[in-house]
Amino acid sequence: MSEQVAETTRAAKSGMGPGSLVHVGEHTDAVVKIRVMDYDHQNLRESALKDFAQCEEYCHSASVTWIDMDGIHDSKLVDEVGKRFNVHILVLEDIMNSESRPKVEFFDDYMFITLKMLELDPKTHSLNVEQLSLIISDKYVLMFQERPGDGFDSIRERIRTSKGKVRSKDGYYLSYLILDTVVDNYIAVSEKLSMQIEALESTVVKRPTEYTLYRILALRKELLDFKRSIDPLKEAVNTITRELDDEIAKYYRDLSDHIIYESENLVMYREMLSNMLDLYHSNLQMKMNQIMKVMTIMTTIFVPLTFLVGVYGMNFEHMPELSTPYGYFVVWGVMLVMVSFMLFFFRRKKWL
Amino acid sequence: MSEQVAETTRAAKSGMGPGSLVHVGEHTDAVVKIRVMDYDHQNLRESALKDFAQCEEYCHSASVTWIDMDGIHDSKLVDEVGKRFNVHILVLEDIMNSESRPKVEFFDDYMFITLKMLELDPKTHSLNVEQLSLIISDKYVLMFQERPGDGFDSIRERIRTSKGKVRSKDGYYLSYLILDTVVDNYIAVSEKLSMQIEALESTVVKRPTEYTLYRILALRKELLDFKRSIDPLKEAVNTITRELDDEIAKYYRDLSDHIIYESENLVMYREMLSNMLDLYHSNLQMKMNQIMKVMTIMTTIFVPLTFLVGVYGMNFEHMPELSTPYGYFVVWGVMLVMVSFMLFFFRRKKWL
Amino acid sequence: MSEQVAETTRAAKSGMGPGSLVHVGEHTDAVVKIRVMDYDHQNLRESALKDFAQCEEYCHSASVTWIDMDGIHDSKLVDEVGKRFNVHILVLEDIMNSESRPKVEFFDDYMFITLKMLELDPKTHSLNVEQLSLIISDKYVLMFQERPGDGFDSIRERIRTSKGKVRSKDGYYLSYLILDTVVDNYIAVSEKLSMQIEALESTVVKRPTEYTLYRILALRKELLDFKRSIDPLKEAVNTITRELDDEIAKYYRDLSDHIIYESENLVMYREMLSNMLDLYHSNLQMKMNQIMKVMTIMTTIFVPLTFLVGVYGMNFEHMPELSTPYGYFVVWGVMLVMVSFMLFFFRRKKWL
Amino acid sequence: MSEQVAETTRAAKSGMGPGSLVHVGEHTDAVVKIRVMDYDHQNLRESALKDFAQCEEYCHSASVTWIDMDGIHDSKLVDEVGKRFNVHILVLEDIMNSESRPKVEFFDDYMFITLKMLELDPKTHSLNVEQLSLIISDKYVLMFQERPGDGFDSIRERIRTSKGKVRSKDGYYLSYLILDTVVDNYIAVSEKLSMQIEALESTVVKRPTEYTLYRILALRKELLDFKRSIDPLKEAVNTITRELDDEIAKYYRDLSDHIIYESENLVMYREMLSNMLDLYHSNLQMKMNQIMKVMTIMTTIFVPLTFLVGVYGMNFEHMPELSTPYGYFVVWGVMLVMVSFMLFFFRRKKWL
Amino acid sequence: MSEQVAETTRAAKSGMGPGSLVHVGEHTDAVVKIRVMDYDHQNLRESALKDFAQCEEYCHSASVTWIDMDGIHDSKLVDEVGKRFNVHILVLEDIMNSESRPKVEFFDDYMFITLKMLELDPKTHSLNVEQLSLIISDKYVLMFQERPGDGFDSIRERIRTSKGKVRSKDGYYLSYLILDTVVDNYIAVSEKLSMQIEALESTVVKRPTEYTLYRILALRKELLDFKRSIDPLKEAVNTITRELDDEIAKYYRDLSDHIIYESENLVMYREMLSNMLDLYHSNLQMKMNQIMKVMTIMTTIFVPLTFLVGVYGMNFEHMPELSTPYGYFVVWGVMLVMVSFMLFFFRRKKWL
Repeated sequence: MSEQVAETTRAAKSGMGPGSLVHVGEHTDAVVKIRVMDYDHQNLRESALKDFAQCEEYCHSASVTWIDMDGIHDSKLVDEVGKRFNVHILVLEDIMNSESRPKVEFFDDYMFITLKMLELDPKTHSLNVEQLSLIISDKYVLMFQERPGDGFDSIRERIRTSKGKVRSKDGYYLSYLILDTVVDNYIAVSEKLSMQIEALESTVVKRPTEYTLYRILALRKELLDFKRSIDPLKEAVNTITRELDDEIAKYYRDLSDHIIYESENLVMYREMLSNMLDLYHSNLQMKMNQIMKVMTIMTTIFVPLTFLVGVYGMNFEHMPELSTPYGYFVVWGVMLVMVSFMLFFFRRKKWL
Repeated sequence: MSEQVAETTRAAKSGMGPGSLVHVGEHTDAVVKIRVMDYDHQNLRESALKDFAQCEEYCHSASVTWIDMDGIHDSKLVDEVGKRFNVHILVLEDIMNSESRPKVEFFDDYMFITLKMLELDPKTHSLNVEQLSLIISDKYVLMFQERPGDGFDSIRERIRTSKGKVRSKDGYYLSYLILDTVVDNYIAVSEKLSMQIEALESTVVKRPTEYTLYRILALRKELLDFKRSIDPLKEAVNTITRELDDEIAKYYRDLSDHIIYESENLVMYREMLSNMLDLYHSNLQMKMNQIMKVMTIMTTIFVPLTFLVGVYGMNFEHMPELSTPYGYFVVWGVMLVMVSFMLFFFRRKKWL
Repeated sequence: MSEQVAETTRAAKSGMGPGSLVHVGEHTDAVVKIRVMDYDHQNLRESALKDFAQCEEYCHSASVTWIDMDGIHDSKLVDEVGKRFNVHILVLEDIMNSESRPKVEFFDDYMFITLKMLELDPKTHSLNVEQLSLIISDKYVLMFQERPGDGFDSIRERIRTSKGKVRSKDGYYLSYLILDTVVDNYIAVSEKLSMQIEALESTVVKRPTEYTLYRILALRKELLDFKRSIDPLKEAVNTITRELDDEIAKYYRDLSDHIIYESENLVMYREMLSNMLDLYHSNLQMKMNQIMKVMTIMTTIFVPLTFLVGVYGMNFEHMPELSTPYGYFVVWGVMLVMVSFMLFFFRRKKWL
Repeated sequence: MSEQVAETTRAAKSGMGPGSLVHVGEHTDAVVKIRVMDYDHQNLRESALKDFAQCEEYCHSASVTWIDMDGIHDSKLVDEVGKRFNVHILVLEDIMNSESRPKVEFFDDYMFITLKMLELDPKTHSLNVEQLSLIISDKYVLMFQERPGDGFDSIRERIRTSKGKVRSKDGYYLSYLILDTVVDNYIAVSEKLSMQIEALESTVVKRPTEYTLYRILALRKELLDFKRSIDPLKEAVNTITRELDDEIAKYYRDLSDHIIYESENLVMYREMLSNMLDLYHSNLQMKMNQIMKVMTIMTTIFVPLTFLVGVYGMNFEHMPELSTPYGYFVVWGVMLVMVSFMLFFFRRKKWL
Repeated sequence: MSEQVAETTRAAKSGMGPGSLVHVGEHTDAVVKIRVMDYDHQNLRESALKDFAQCEEYCHSASVTWIDMDGIHDSKLVDEVGKRFNVHILVLEDIMNSESRPKVEFFDDYMFITLKMLELDPKTHSLNVEQLSLIISDKYVLMFQERPGDGFDSIRERIRTSKGKVRSKDGYYLSYLILDTVVDNYIAVSEKLSMQIEALESTVVKRPTEYTLYRILALRKELLDFKRSIDPLKEAVNTITRELDDEIAKYYRDLSDHIIYESENLVMYREMLSNMLDLYHSNLQMKMNQIMKVMTIMTTIFVPLTFLVGVYGMNFEHMPELSTPYGYFVVWGVMLVMVSFMLFFFRRKKWL
């Protein structure tokens, strides 16, 4: 929002109507990198392309083809992909819109899923959200990321070494592996948030400042962002488990469990932040009470004494006490008694 | 509500019963403008009419006819439309009632949808709500707006230039374009609200006044108004996706996603406002604490000193200290010690 | 509740078991007035009866008979009606119980609906609730009100003038007209509440007193009462739209929309009251802050000055300053400097 | 909970496994009284038994047999009943467990329902909960209460006098009468709670103490207990209305309406208590404001005056004002002006 | 979380993909103990094994075999079990992941259920959670615990003595016994929590400290943890009651009732804690009020008196009162009148 210039906002797209492929998100001119992995039980071909047209040779094979594109701002590319794989125009629009809501959609010859990858910015402590869209069939997986760089290298390695029988399974299994990696990453982010929350917790108890409050509220907002990415995904994965056949659905069901687990974590974090807010506020109130106690004690002890010495500072000609030889000392005695009484009173009130 | 005179309120309609076409909303005498676009793949006719009877020639054609009426207060016109297109009396009532709840209804030969267009008044920052009703079949779209002026010019332009194959599609696609424009506008309004909220956020942190609180609460109310327009629409569009056949339903499903996205935005804005309220209140409390601290420090330092000098202001005849040569300087010394001790105490309490 | 004597409470009925027709509600001995309208497309007969037996002649006709009874405390009458129209004993009990929950029930030859009519007492600003029960078939509508006087005269007039083709429709349409009138009245009540809320709103901002708080909470309770009347009715009318055939159900569906609209209004009013409570409380806190500021400023300025003049009020024999010729004026100078410094400090803290 | 010794807690039962009939609840050694009513349209036999074996003669008859046992701690008796009527072991366990959740269960030849009877302890104002379990078929009703004494004498009387055709109906109707009596009693308890709440309401407005707060919170807890008894019952009775055939279900549906009505009452009471809490807290805050106002007024008026008189209490040799003849009176004049100004200031601030 | 070194966190597993059996939880090297009970109506064999291979002889029998493994960190063992009993790889992963969410899953020849055992740490008052996984068929129950030591000895004893016909039932009944024991233990934990809450309640009323607040919030968090273990289990057991046939489902339904009961308990505890928070905060506020009252009273009484004596401490040459013989005593009289008036004022304000 802060860089209005460099972004095409969703609102700006208004009036262009459907069918117009416009990128919504941070503006970039980077050339989109295209990586292809094409494998079956026996063979594996890997290459980095500059032109989508080169994909042609992989597409017609019976092997599983994983095409990974590191950018969603290139409308020409997206259009080309759409034509080659016969993708619905609205799906292409969703791919180019970095503000799409996580969801799954089923078409005659493919399944479309879009979701969010999360990352905790180490500097600002805020949540970075990146759009990930997948077009999946048993023979191919088309993957669109917003930016280069992802956490899927371990999957690529496993395909290369064929560990865990990946190579003998189809595109739906590959996409399960991708989603599983994304969700595992959610859990990593969640654990970092949890550590931040625990760090805050001790600050609230020991030495709360206005910044503490600010952090609590900021974390609350991040949890909300998190929840917004995860809740529609929960729904989407549930739909998948119902639509796919049981063998592969088992895997997605396991994924669904992990997402629900994470979603419950968020609820608990939220509760912990609410607790902290409570603690913070009552801490403020307690401090106030303490400040007032000090002042009340000082006032209550010295105001009567000051009055008393004021009495004997009066200049009346006829004040019998003034001329008694021990008057001064008697006054000191009276004042000591008064102070003792006050101290006793405060102790009984448990203020001291 | 403020201009009771110029409005026919819904309550006033009470007792008239169904079948009586009465306009509920701001009173106006403006003549309703009627614009017609009639198109098919090859031809396009456009005209502005003064009399609905002139529509006759367009209605019998096999082409798609879009009749746009800029007013809902003219009961004669509405009645005429009703008779010509065989519209149910209750639908006509809903059209004339600017307080109708967004909804969709299916009839034998048409679908009726009523919804709200939103606009953020640049001066008062409040939300202007305008009623939009559509009677839709594959051959015609009857559109009723409350006031002249709308955001549909881009659609008209696209029909004229036939960009995006609009001309080869039917009335349900046209109405999808209209709804899509309305929803895109929701997003624009939402982005403006979001900017207002962020502006408020920094005010709350830096220099909150009572006006800040007032704005927070006003925004909360606007979000509620927004939500009230958008939630029933969500439901209505969902119903459409179930009722229409799959080819066109895909478009409405996309629309539904946008509405849900927006609806979730509102939830997040609401949360942000709650956060701000929290911040605002604890800011007030913190200021109070600071004020009290200053007072307590002043009181605690000077009240005992004032007592001490009061002691030596007494007029007793026998006060041995008074006649010692350095008594006055000893008192100053004692007072300095006392002040030092107090300052040390305050520093340990972290009040300084 | 306040007039325990004059009421038969529901609890008192305990132990009488079903089948015992006992009036639950405010006690009254008034004679129940019975009004009959009997009409078909051609004829209309109207009369006021004293004895239900006189109804006999209207009952056998093929025309629609609307029998309106202004009282539910006359167990003999209710029993007679029950026998004549073969009404289930539990329905009769519900009719006599002014604390029945709004609901609809379907029997072999009639439909039973009970609901609440609302009125805002102009004096106490509280909500008056009146029970209305209807036994409906296509040939008759039996209507039981708690008290004489209702808002249905416009319906009667329309039957007489046959405006809006009422006379050509059956009992279900008549009962729709009755319910529609009741719901329109809800809207009128709601608008009055809304005006009260807006009046309160300005009071809260300008000059809140404890009475303001009291009114806010009282309105909140009234909204709850309102909600309690309207929410079960929403459910009941929904059931009707499912049970009746589509032609007449359309009307009830329209009614349902109005009720939902009203129900959403209540949610919004509730939110507005919550906002006001927030405003009220932070207003209190702000006032407190202001009071404390005044006191802190006064204390902080004068307490050190008082100490200073106290110093030179001491009676030590050796106080060098006292005998200097300009000592007094120097002290004044020092004090002016101190005050200036304080004022500067307060201005920087934005307290002045 | 306070009398751990005399109770078998549910936890202590842990590890005994199903099939072990152990009483959970307050310990007692009382001999269980068994009362039998056996009736049909013509005959009625009543007797009090000491030994369940004596029931034998009633059980084989075609008449309705109501066996009422005043105790659930006698595992031998419960076991005997179980064997004689072929009751599932888990049902027997539920009967002996006074902490069973209200529920209904259907078996081949009987229906089992367990629920709570409520009573407001006149001394402690707390809610006494008693378990009631019924095993119902058309030919018998087995009733288990926790303690002797119940509110069912009116039913017994009606059976004796055969008022309201009880004698011609079956066991399901009898159990409906029993449940109806229990629910009527809920309403009585609810009315007492309502009166307590209203009494509290005026206390909160007039003279709130910490005890008031304590009572509000205690009532809130009682409402929760109430809700816990009533909500599962609502569900259970709903199930019954679906399972039984329509003739008798009508009665249970009526019962269901009463329970929902009561359940909504509880929601409203809860809301009223929340309102009171709000009122209570803002009352505290208001009092605080008033206290501070008094102190601020006193301080603000007298602190500057005290300073002024302190000035002329200084002992400088050269203070020109001291020797002017009217200096003293001028000072008084100045002080009067200062006080007037302060009073004017306070009045403008609306503090006086 | 505090011992990051000794734990394999779920996040660390990220990128290993499915099919890799990795223990998630506290690290341990303990050798897993394996206990076998193999029984039918007539025979019982019991033994403790070191090697899972030894199980072979029990597995092929027609008797029920209960294999209990005290550890989930031994991936070799889990893998072996998986192969021997043909368990799905994802189930094995869930077994080794101590952070699995409670759930049930049905496979062709077995049912898998994982849940949490709870224990209240007597020292830290915190909730210890232990994972329990069961693979169940009619012929075997495979049980995986996280740590040695459990509460199932009573079940083992009952198998040995064949009390309660356990020996004549199948594996589903055995697993019911196990779950029942776990749930009974929930109730025991809940009762301990309840006692802690009641203990806190009296502390809040009598002498609340910051530690009290801390405990309230800690308990709130524990309830959340508890709820998180119990709510998914509720769901899971519900699924079981639908899937198994009615004879055994009855037992699981009873279990379900107990879980719901416990779940409602948690809701009530939560409410009680909320009440306490309210009480705590208003206690703080009340104390503040009291402190301020004391200070206000002292200030209001002595500030005017101090001013008065200051007046007669002035050194004007012409102050007529000073030379009157009774001036001093008149001043004392005036001061007494002032004090009396103040005391009267405070009493009327109910501050004394």
